[in-house]
Amino acid sequence: MDNGNGGDHRQGRILVVGGTHGNERNGLWLLEQWRQHPDQLQRHGLVLELVVGNPVAAQDNRRYVDRDLNRSFKAELLSDPHNQELEVLRARQLLARHGPAGKEPCLVAIDLHSTTAAMGNSLVLYNRQPASLALAAVLQRRLGLPVYLHESDSRQSGYLGACWPCALVIEVGPVAQGLVSGRICQQSQIAVEAALEALAQARQGPIALGSELLVHGHWRSIDLPRHGDGSPAGLVHPCLQDRDWRPLGAGDPLFVAGDGTTIAFTPENGDGSGSLWPVFINEAAYGEKGIALSLTRRERVPVAAGWAASLTELARCLERDPP
Amino acid sequence: MDNGNGGDHRQGRILVVGGTHGNERNGLWLLEQWRQHPDQLQRHGLVLELVVGNPVAAQDNRRYVDRDLNRSFKAELLSDPHNQELEVLRARQLLARHGPAGKEPCLVAIDLHSTTAAMGNSLVLYNRQPASLALAAVLQRRLGLPVYLHESDSRQSGYLGACWPCALVIEVGPVAQGLVSGRICQQSQIAVEAALEALAQARQGPIALGSELLVHGHWRSIDLPRHGDGSPAGLVHPCLQDRDWRPLGAGDPLFVAGDGTTIAFTPENGDGSGSLWPVFINEAAYGEKGIALSLTRRERVPVAAGWAASLTELARCLERDPP
Repeated sequence: MDNGNGGDHRQGRILVVGGTHGNERNGLWLLEQWRQHPDQLQRHGLVLELVVGNPVAAQDNRRYVDRDLNRSFKAELLSDPHNQELEVLRARQLLARHGPAGKEPCLVAIDLHSTTAAMGNSLVLYNRQPASLALAAVLQRRLGLPVYLHESDSRQSGYLGACWPCALVIEVGPVAQGLVSGRICQQSQIAVEAALEALAQARQGPIALGSELLVHGHWRSIDLPRHGDGSPAGLVHPCLQDRDWRPLGAGDPLFVAGDGTTIAFTPENGDGSGSLWPVFINEAAYGEKGIALSLTRRERVPVAAGWAASLTELARCLERDPP
Repeated sequence: MDNGNGGDHRQGRILVVGGTHGNERNGLWLLEQWRQHPDQLQRHGLVLELVVGNPVAAQDNRRYVDRDLNRSFKAELLSDPHNQELEVLRARQLLARHGPAGKEPCLVAIDLHSTTAAMGNSLVLYNRQPASLALAAVLQRRLGLPVYLHESDSRQSGYLGACWPCALVIEVGPVAQGLVSGRICQQSQIAVEAALEALAQARQGPIALGSELLVHGHWRSIDLPRHGDGSPAGLVHPCLQDRDWRPLGAGDPLFVAGDGTTIAFTPENGDGSGSLWPVFINEAAYGEKGIALSLTRRERVPVAAGWAASLTELARCLERDPP
């Protein structure tokens, strides 16, 4: 699964996935509309594979059936012949069909997600692959999208996006699970079209990326306060709700306990100096994962000389519509 | 089930229900906190029954198991001995225990709901019982809460709130299903406390209700445009999303079709003159009911002389804490 950043790509397409989580329905809606009305998506001549990530869960309007598909792309699960969980089977199938070495190979994966958190229109990356960083840099430069770099999280891994040499999650919120919102769809589509335009332009030669990419690098996640039996003893503080991407400092309200008292944020030893920036504040699906919010550090990553070249190298292997 | 407005109430308590829909978790959270920290709720000396509406569905974080509990309080269902659906059994049980003629009778029902629609902090009434109108008038006067009078809807009936001589739904949104939000809880609690305060004051004698109650009376519901196979052919227009309680006029954007074209609102014959005011715009749970939004007419209902007297008569039968 090390699809690395090597230059020997076979020709391939762009994988656009909706419904990796079956109750995030905006991506599913978009896929269906793009199939019915291909002219509604500016593809810039690139060939797409429009794929429902978890069709069984989508049918049932649930996030997953046996396990979270977007935590199932792990070598130890994929290689375990005894594991026949629905999502592990699906992950194997997606890689066999549309993985970079699959039967109908894709070189880029764009994974459409939505969240109940007020993330706005945003990007999630799982690693620092140069082509992914380059694509994110173009989208940030053109659309101002914030980037959550969700790497080095020992508790969360196995993401679909980690298996392609260039991958972006487009994460848009807030929107309830099970709900299609025209605004969320518009935001998602704008980001997809900008990515496709960037890939088409990168075919022509290295494109301008600016001098730095602003990322919010994963630091750690925080759970709600809990009683001894595991039930929540507090909530995300109303003053923190919807304040994704804004700094959280020592003494700021963090939780409100069941008795009404405010629990303030106290950076622990090791949080060091400087602000921490919360993301995915009160995402409905993360309660079961013990995550009330994730803390990030802001980092200005200098754009490296190789990023644009990597993107161009990859983009030149992308299939185009027949003339 | 005609619990009428007669004056011969037995003594009774106030029923406060959360989790009538098992995935509306803010009410469930509040009930749990009020049980653990009774001092966190200003009860004004009144005795409450704090009850989880649909505990089985709540356990499973779903709206219902067999049928919507809040459409199950219908004579034809309740009286059918062959009907053993979980929610029909639960409706019978709630009435037998806490109905106005139950073993532990309640005279007032306050039913805590949340919605994915941007309803704000609002009230829903299902009929024009004087004591309910009086209580709504106090809450509107003190807190400015808008009122959806959901009566005369041949497609939707069987509400819990229709079975008690004084009943209010406190409906707060937007919030995703399955999610507890501190702000939604605060809003719900403010409304509950105002209702309890009003009931405590009404025991002393008729209370000031103002001269009129502004209600948004149910007119009809509108479904999304659909394909022949029943699948949606459009979405609520982004310009209409979150515009609950604001007038919708001829030509205003209503839906956006899958091909991107805007479908404007066209009042049908019979809509008559004057604005229509949408509520429950894009509520996630109403897709299955074929409701994209409901249209109401604004009505200024003059406060009748009997309202305050009815409320006082009922409030005097409410149990109080032992001194």
